[in-house]
Amino acid sequence: MKVAILMGSKSDYEVVKKCEDLLKNFGVEVTTRVMSAHRTPDIAAEFVKGAKENGYDVIIGAAGKAAHLPGVIASFTTLPVIGLPIKSSTMDGLDSLLSIVQMPSGIPVATVAINGAENAGLLALEMMSLKYKNLGDALENYREEMRKKVIADDASLGGC
Amino acid sequence: MKVAILMGSKSDYEVVKKCEDLLKNFGVEVTTRVMSAHRTPDIAAEFVKGAKENGYDVIIGAAGKAAHLPGVIASFTTLPVIGLPIKSSTMDGLDSLLSIVQMPSGIPVATVAINGAENAGLLALEMMSLKYKNLGDALENYREEMRKKVIADDASLGGC
Amino acid sequence: MKVAILMGSKSDYEVVKKCEDLLKNFGVEVTTRVMSAHRTPDIAAEFVKGAKENGYDVIIGAAGKAAHLPGVIASFTTLPVIGLPIKSSTMDGLDSLLSIVQMPSGIPVATVAINGAENAGLLALEMMSLKYKNLGDALENYREEMRKKVIADDASLGGC
Amino acid sequence: MKVAILMGSKSDYEVVKKCEDLLKNFGVEVTTRVMSAHRTPDIAAEFVKGAKENGYDVIIGAAGKAAHLPGVIASFTTLPVIGLPIKSSTMDGLDSLLSIVQMPSGIPVATVAINGAENAGLLALEMMSLKYKNLGDALENYREEMRKKVIADDASLGGC
Amino acid sequence: MKVAILMGSKSDYEVVKKCEDLLKNFGVEVTTRVMSAHRTPDIAAEFVKGAKENGYDVIIGAAGKAAHLPGVIASFTTLPVIGLPIKSSTMDGLDSLLSIVQMPSGIPVATVAINGAENAGLLALEMMSLKYKNLGDALENYREEMRKKVIADDASLGGC
Amino acid sequence: MKVAILMGSKSDYEVVKKCEDLLKNFGVEVTTRVMSAHRTPDIAAEFVKGAKENGYDVIIGAAGKAAHLPGVIASFTTLPVIGLPIKSSTMDGLDSLLSIVQMPSGIPVATVAINGAENAGLLALEMMSLKYKNLGDALENYREEMRKKVIADDASLGGC
Amino acid sequence: MKVAILMGSKSDYEVVKKCEDLLKNFGVEVTTRVMSAHRTPDIAAEFVKGAKENGYDVIIGAAGKAAHLPGVIASFTTLPVIGLPIKSSTMDGLDSLLSIVQMPSGIPVATVAINGAENAGLLALEMMSLKYKNLGDALENYREEMRKKVIADDASLGGC
Amino acid sequence: MKVAILMGSKSDYEVVKKCEDLLKNFGVEVTTRVMSAHRTPDIAAEFVKGAKENGYDVIIGAAGKAAHLPGVIASFTTLPVIGLPIKSSTMDGLDSLLSIVQMPSGIPVATVAINGAENAGLLALEMMSLKYKNLGDALENYREEMRKKVIADDASLGGC
Repeated sequence: MKVAILMGSKSDYEVVKKCEDLLKNFGVEVTTRVMSAHRTPDIAAEFVKGAKENGYDVIIGAAGKAAHLPGVIASFTTLPVIGLPIKSSTMDGLDSLLSIVQMPSGIPVATVAINGAENAGLLALEMMSLKYKNLGDALENYREEMRKKVIADDASLGGC
Repeated sequence: MKVAILMGSKSDYEVVKKCEDLLKNFGVEVTTRVMSAHRTPDIAAEFVKGAKENGYDVIIGAAGKAAHLPGVIASFTTLPVIGLPIKSSTMDGLDSLLSIVQMPSGIPVATVAINGAENAGLLALEMMSLKYKNLGDALENYREEMRKKVIADDASLGGC
Repeated sequence: MKVAILMGSKSDYEVVKKCEDLLKNFGVEVTTRVMSAHRTPDIAAEFVKGAKENGYDVIIGAAGKAAHLPGVIASFTTLPVIGLPIKSSTMDGLDSLLSIVQMPSGIPVATVAINGAENAGLLALEMMSLKYKNLGDALENYREEMRKKVIADDASLGGC
Repeated sequence: MKVAILMGSKSDYEVVKKCEDLLKNFGVEVTTRVMSAHRTPDIAAEFVKGAKENGYDVIIGAAGKAAHLPGVIASFTTLPVIGLPIKSSTMDGLDSLLSIVQMPSGIPVATVAINGAENAGLLALEMMSLKYKNLGDALENYREEMRKKVIADDASLGGC
Repeated sequence: MKVAILMGSKSDYEVVKKCEDLLKNFGVEVTTRVMSAHRTPDIAAEFVKGAKENGYDVIIGAAGKAAHLPGVIASFTTLPVIGLPIKSSTMDGLDSLLSIVQMPSGIPVATVAINGAENAGLLALEMMSLKYKNLGDALENYREEMRKKVIADDASLGGC
Repeated sequence: MKVAILMGSKSDYEVVKKCEDLLKNFGVEVTTRVMSAHRTPDIAAEFVKGAKENGYDVIIGAAGKAAHLPGVIASFTTLPVIGLPIKSSTMDGLDSLLSIVQMPSGIPVATVAINGAENAGLLALEMMSLKYKNLGDALENYREEMRKKVIADDASLGGC
Repeated sequence: MKVAILMGSKSDYEVVKKCEDLLKNFGVEVTTRVMSAHRTPDIAAEFVKGAKENGYDVIIGAAGKAAHLPGVIASFTTLPVIGLPIKSSTMDGLDSLLSIVQMPSGIPVATVAINGAENAGLLALEMMSLKYKNLGDALENYREEMRKKVIADDASLGGC
Repeated sequence: MKVAILMGSKSDYEVVKKCEDLLKNFGVEVTTRVMSAHRTPDIAAEFVKGAKENGYDVIIGAAGKAAHLPGVIASFTTLPVIGLPIKSSTMDGLDSLLSIVQMPSGIPVATVAINGAENAGLLALEMMSLKYKNLGDALENYREEMRKKVIADDASLGGC
């Protein structure tokens, strides 16, 4: 189980780290890199073109504003690519979201919520569970923990 | 290779059919169903809860307006779920998009573009290529065809 | 007079509490619960399916982001369901609002303003006043108090 | 069972009629009127102030653009008021929706989807079911019919 | 020269005060009142209906969220009515703006920018300058002062 | 009573004509001109600078897209300037509206609804009624006619 | 004078042609090509990397939806790159606009209006006029023609 | 190499300074001025009309809200004009962006991202590189520095 997380700017790491931590907790080998679709396009292209051969199962691209990184990644591989829109200082993340999700026909990016780092990680796990059968159980356990957390929150308010 | 496409309303089929056709062209066994998150929630829940055992690899949920179907599907399975926002007669698809992509932490939906039926299908194929190795080649071929199509379009305008 | 307030996340309680307090001040029996449309869908479904028999008159669903909870509640009961969109850290509440108000035909959700907790409570009271006749007088008194408050505010600025 | 449907302009009737028809099919006595918050404010105020005494259970206000009618209605009665935003030729209904749903604290309007005429009617029925017990059964039947319709649509696509 | 400034909530006064101060600096008699389109509709209606006879030249209505006050004022008088949209805690003022500016045909509201209190005052002065001839000179002077301010700001940066 | 209607493009005349007709029906002398803030800025500036001396009471500026004309007009006169946002082929008029209404402090533009040509005319009349006393009566009559129209529409649906 | 117009899809040509025609009318050598940032990224990269050596002065990139082409072009050259957002069937061009204009710091794209093909061409000419001195005169003539056109439009409405 | 930066308000300087600094670092002679499209239109017009003769190569206009300055500048010169939208206290910069980028046909403004001061400077440099050949090398160096910065950021996270 091997996932690459590429982000367009080091400043995205504050959000991205939650995704990295979650994947590592599930025992995934994670490579986290700063690569820019615009400032280091050749490095990004080279990394992505070799990703399948290097054993990566899924690539997560995180970027803000005119967030081209996930789409550019997707153009260089047929591995599933997850897009994580990062909210920047203007437009409340709408620019990032639309730049990632509205990909033209032919090159999909699996987009999650703005700043939805944990869901990017969980989605990668769900995808990999098609290949790694024990991941399914781990994900069911995670869901059960979430369920217990909600029930505990409910109880803390006096619900039952 | 088995994919379920669930749509919230029969009227979504006009868009959804492109996804179905694409998947079948790749040799995927496709089950296309009309199930509503609100009008037949029990049928949807039952179908989705049994999906993994019934051999489905991926579920695609298509819905418009307050499009809850993909998220509701995702709450009942750890299979990867793809959300396809359908544009309806008001709000230009923004309501569908936000209702699908902005899922809270814990239950991801892999969202594609508004009315992006082909990309929903391609994304499902990319996910399944983790498990079915020959899909990777088929996807590379599809990309190559797209590439030739762009080059032909380019040539038709006099480019070279 | 019995109202259930269901919220998707404990973090919504800061907003929801104003609704709870208002209802209690009117002598309504209030059950406040944390239930997630996605993390504990079965608990939510079971609670809502039994709500009418358990004497609830109205259910209020509060949720943020892709806010499916009110719609999911509404799919399991013909009791009137009020949707309270919660503003989250991105999109300024627009995602919550559209996810709740744009319900497809057949399953309505009575939507109030983003973070409009007091109005959710007042709307529940107005609905219940169809059944509990003395509520009408209580609501008229509340309006009169609001009116006096505006007049006092006006006077404090020197108006008359 | 008596409902008033007030609309700001006769041109809204094309949308509103679906609401009127639905209510009549449930045996509701419906009064449909054209009254403008701005052009005949006194007529609207007088009608609404007398609505409770005249036996109305619910008032539905339909309006487009800067849609003040539902809020103005709500300011003159403690009966539950349903707001139906009508899409006009600009802004895709967003102006109508925000003008109705974003009511300030104290005077709620139960807002449904843009052009959601049937849901406005169903919501009125759900509210009235608190008072008229047999309405609950009728609504359950309506839901069952919707359910059958979805199942039939599903079957027509080959689902089962 | 007599202007009424009506605001929907005392909390709007922080913004409104700049308008009040500006008008007073031009020697206008200003009446500032808190009146709610929804909580004290009768007081607002009565005030506005008598405004022309009571010597008011212009009425300014300030309100936030589903901001009906300026439109409601305009429905009761043929005096020019200026709408001042107030930004509230959600939607960044877009709801206020659309609720005020998108008035249906027949009842105009002269809308200024979100939180544009000074411009509301200046617009009132420009309107009144049709009647009070010396206001034109005062406004020209004000413009000249603004001009000098810009030139001074320019100079402070080293421009010339 | 003399009003200038300036539009940025001849194509705006389809909308603008309703404003022109309305003003003429009230006996106003109307000058309708095509002047562009960008293509003929000097002509626009010269016209506006001389407007007061040439007897104009109000100037209406109509424009679409990045609609600078009303603001540019307002920068050259202290006459009241009305801005009429024209909907163009993209952005549903939101660009025109924001370009006109969000004027910075110091230079107000009295903005009406997108394509709200009649309201632009009525607002000009209300402004001029401060100076021309008989206009007040004419406006009251116009309101009375609107009122009768609404009542007739109401009657045509069976209301009373 | 040599300009390359690259478009992401042949369907963009309907809009792009106006740009091409305008440039040719000014005597510019134009190369119009279909190249996709996602489907033929290598072709696009190769073309752009060689553009300066091949004598191009400016590159115009036209694309819709998640419009990455202009930004991707800009990442491979320090020639000025103009972005032309194309309106597609959803989101009214807002997705294209934000995907192009909101470029992160370091790699600018000179963005024009949605579907603003002529302005893309004129902007290229203005840029080239820094190098080709006679272009300045040609542009002045073009402006003068526009000016005459506005004056003629004005005259056709009876203005003078 | 000579660039003028004109801003609508001194408060824009906080953002604009980054542009000024960047240009000076490239050895450009920069004139930074506060000029308002509305408050000092004659000064702005005079400056811009003489800009070409005074040796300016590019003009950058920065403004917020209904940001007319860049368009007004562009109407008085055929020099390339860059528009820098400034985010103000409401509307998150969307008003500034649309007011600048949606220029009608004939008068282009090269628009960069909201608050994208550095990109405004870099775009000016790219334009000027058509005329000043050594700028091309300087820009390539700047890109190389950015590239190294990204690689260093990448290394700091442990990437290689």
